[in-house]
Amino acid sequence: MTVRIALDAMGGDHAPQVPVEGALRALREIPDLHILLIGPEDRLRAALGRRAAGLPLSIVHASQVVEMHEHTIAVKAKRDSSMVVGMRLVRAGEADAFVSMGNTGAVMAAALFHLGRIPGIDRPALATLYPTLRGHCLLLDIGANTDPKPEHLVQFAMMGVVYAERVLGWPRPRVGILSNGEEPGKGSILVREAYRRLEASGLNFIGNVEGKDIPRGAADVVVTDGFTGNVVVKHTEGFVAFLVRFLKAQLTDGALDRVGLAMALPGLLLAAPGLLLLLPSLREILRRLDYREYGGAPLLGVDGVVVIGHGRSDAKAVKNAIHAAVRAVRGRMLDAIREGLTALQASASLEAAVH
Amino acid sequence: MTVRIALDAMGGDHAPQVPVEGALRALREIPDLHILLIGPEDRLRAALGRRAAGLPLSIVHASQVVEMHEHTIAVKAKRDSSMVVGMRLVRAGEADAFVSMGNTGAVMAAALFHLGRIPGIDRPALATLYPTLRGHCLLLDIGANTDPKPEHLVQFAMMGVVYAERVLGWPRPRVGILSNGEEPGKGSILVREAYRRLEASGLNFIGNVEGKDIPRGAADVVVTDGFTGNVVVKHTEGFVAFLVRFLKAQLTDGALDRVGLAMALPGLLLAAPGLLLLLPSLREILRRLDYREYGGAPLLGVDGVVVIGHGRSDAKAVKNAIHAAVRAVRGRMLDAIREGLTALQASASLEAAVH
Repeated sequence: MTVRIALDAMGGDHAPQVPVEGALRALREIPDLHILLIGPEDRLRAALGRRAAGLPLSIVHASQVVEMHEHTIAVKAKRDSSMVVGMRLVRAGEADAFVSMGNTGAVMAAALFHLGRIPGIDRPALATLYPTLRGHCLLLDIGANTDPKPEHLVQFAMMGVVYAERVLGWPRPRVGILSNGEEPGKGSILVREAYRRLEASGLNFIGNVEGKDIPRGAADVVVTDGFTGNVVVKHTEGFVAFLVRFLKAQLTDGALDRVGLAMALPGLLLAAPGLLLLLPSLREILRRLDYREYGGAPLLGVDGVVVIGHGRSDAKAVKNAIHAAVRAVRGRMLDAIREGLTALQASASLEAAVH
Repeated sequence: MTVRIALDAMGGDHAPQVPVEGALRALREIPDLHILLIGPEDRLRAALGRRAAGLPLSIVHASQVVEMHEHTIAVKAKRDSSMVVGMRLVRAGEADAFVSMGNTGAVMAAALFHLGRIPGIDRPALATLYPTLRGHCLLLDIGANTDPKPEHLVQFAMMGVVYAERVLGWPRPRVGILSNGEEPGKGSILVREAYRRLEASGLNFIGNVEGKDIPRGAADVVVTDGFTGNVVVKHTEGFVAFLVRFLKAQLTDGALDRVGLAMALPGLLLAAPGLLLLLPSLREILRRLDYREYGGAPLLGVDGVVVIGHGRSDAKAVKNAIHAAVRAVRGRMLDAIREGLTALQASASLEAAVH
């Protein structure tokens, strides 16, 4: 079955070039894929040149663009923007998924407005892959909801598990809830109540995980509210930038301190090969941390497959986001979330009957 | 005026040796200091040997010990523990401050029970110095309150400013509130309401700071709830451990990948000097991150000066914690918090009158 991906050709810092390149790469790699490239037709034709000839790629005209730094509500006014047109294609069943590297808040708003939520899901959640010693974990919510209720965290957990199984291919993912201590009684009021419900959810719930457990890979799916998740993800970004600057200063100043001024040059020469190896290593870490690079961040809980990539995405990252969307469609992610919801409701009724 | 510090000689991983060494160092460095060393008299005499002769140091006997891994409530049962005896000395005015490297939860519980709160402060907060590109910022609360109310965050901000000015010597510290976006409307319900009150507080409030802004040093005092603060501090700890392991693997595997097996040995030799410089740099970062090493974490808002050091503290860290306690006493920190409270109440009434 051919999967039809609506791609926002005007999202991201280097649109339409980067989305167009990403689309061409995806078409070379992914069989049975049709891409609907959305944006101003003339600009997309110019960016494509002759390369689209014979490829399963169509252009869908959209005259407006939601800029990266525009306020979220801009998407409401721009009804002929690539975001809104893309969502409408999904809504109408003319596309199976929507992929955008655009303004995260605007994509979320457009998705909520034009696709709505999966019936029974109260709030959507934005998920990201986060690097750990074991590979990655899925962290959600990272910013869709700043004040969720306990039942929402349970829904996030279920959707995270479905995404991990169906799209990432992780068997029986371990679910942890982010807390300020490992013991079961630890946590805010929100976390303690969500903990109790997660225990009864039928998910593979392993309990509280602390901030230090995320990079250890203690859980495969880490559930938290969008406020804390956002702070963790952005803090990581800022902390890595701090480390890069701090290490550079340490390596050079440290060498100077240790060997003295007369010996400084040989000291620096000694340090140089390490630095040369170190800097790509740090760059690799930054890449691993670049949230959404790995196939983008899925917006879980809206009634359609929506994947949001980073504004700084390159063509490879766009291709990966398309890959993730295709896997979500082929893995019947939305159906799996609906089924998961039924199972959650069943365990909730069971729990209510027991209590 | 002589400052009398009650030091928990039984707190920390290497008690009583490390606290005793720290006390001796502090006495060598800090003029007009008297230390009350609290713990089982025979063990303290043995640890001191003849070194206490002629020094302004007394032993106060306490027969019980709250172990590092005991539950917080152990402190309630152990009424002759070094923690409880120390708090009682402060309460009775026989000591000016209490310093402990013991179990954080137990010290907090003992402080609340035996010293109580400063009248008008609803909740105490635990503060820590956090490394930034500009040096450090003061981050609070990092775990005393998981579910504070907006007015508590304003009290935390005021107490953080007093600590920064009186103990750390920072002029007119900039206060930021940790949020999930920079714009004024961003944040959880708690943060948005606290933001409004901080604007009217008369403090040097600079608005929202994001996770990435903490290591940049965007604010001198970063205010947050104890849940989020705890997650940030512990996440940093876990993330650095992740980086150390990841970089080590990258540096060695990377060298192997790049130069091939035949060339592996010279490649590793080239990388070695960099590694040798790199590892102390990372150790230095770990040291900088070791929350409470810089003079310990003050427990702000209890009616007495209480400084909690890290369980892994060495003698230097104990000495620094004693230093911080002495500065808090000499800087009349408690009076300054009381005055700050009056100012806050005045701006709150003013705001109420205006609205």
